[in-house]
Amino acid sequence: MDQNAKKTALRMIPYGLFVLTAESKSGAAAATVNWVTQGSFTPPFVVVGVKADSGAHKIIKESNAFALNVLGKGQQAMAYTFFKPAERQGSTISGEPFHAGTTGAPILANTPAFVECRLVATVEQGDHSIFVGEVVEAGVAKAPDGRPDDATLWLKELGDKVFYGG
Amino acid sequence: MDQNAKKTALRMIPYGLFVLTAESKSGAAAATVNWVTQGSFTPPFVVVGVKADSGAHKIIKESNAFALNVLGKGQQAMAYTFFKPAERQGSTISGEPFHAGTTGAPILANTPAFVECRLVATVEQGDHSIFVGEVVEAGVAKAPDGRPDDATLWLKELGDKVFYGG
Repeated sequence: MDQNAKKTALRMIPYGLFVLTAESKSGAAAATVNWVTQGSFTPPFVVVGVKADSGAHKIIKESNAFALNVLGKGQQAMAYTFFKPAERQGSTISGEPFHAGTTGAPILANTPAFVECRLVATVEQGDHSIFVGEVVEAGVAKAPDGRPDDATLWLKELGDKVFYGG
Repeated sequence: MDQNAKKTALRMIPYGLFVLTAESKSGAAAATVNWVTQGSFTPPFVVVGVKADSGAHKIIKESNAFALNVLGKGQQAMAYTFFKPAERQGSTISGEPFHAGTTGAPILANTPAFVECRLVATVEQGDHSIFVGEVVEAGVAKAPDGRPDDATLWLKELGDKVFYGG
């Protein structure tokens, strides 16, 4: 296999950006992710790829739940905040206010929308695990004016040379 | 759960468009899909959601392989072609020329890039199944000028009111 062709073809997949959150007895996790897709309408499933050696991975496996907080247009700074290890202090994570959702996963106050999921399946075979979650709660803080996907921060908006994939 | 909030939040996930292809003794399948994400770097996994009662689903399960042909900017007509049931005639599917890839999955001649995958895991719990494939072959017919994801046809480019998700 031509490794450059593989990299280019995989980088042709467009992505949005999300802050993946979870909380267990071990603590809270919050990490910017982009490997996200819907996986079923009924029941409503979302799929997310999560680095196998990350804090979020451990906490999702302990809590069997996670939230995806959708980053909105212009929220590049928040995306970069959650590329770094998250630090919880009271009702903030890395400075961002949150409350506990139905599943216990942190729901960020300043992102335009979220879904909360119960973990229903896991594929642990690579350097990232694939978590399949059933959406059990959702909220929209700021209704999009046009297409919902236009209101989302896209990976490409982080910079011409920023990729996570390939 | 507020169903409208769920729909809006899920529609905030941006998507590209791909023609999913597979071939088994039962025949060939080709269907436009958008629920696609990478799932691991090493080994390289991609994840695709496929309608459980579709022909492509049956043929992928029989062949344990599939290809994702990445649709390029301006290929809206091909996206619509493969929303309809595919018809193979010799070395064309629904009029599009192809050849058999390493895995036997059809590789379309007129799309800018493809990845071919061996099926490594399946989650069959919803109206779509989640197929996890290991990328075993890839090709780029037309190298993107700028960012690879800018060269891809995006779901939003099919029309202001076209969605598959929510």
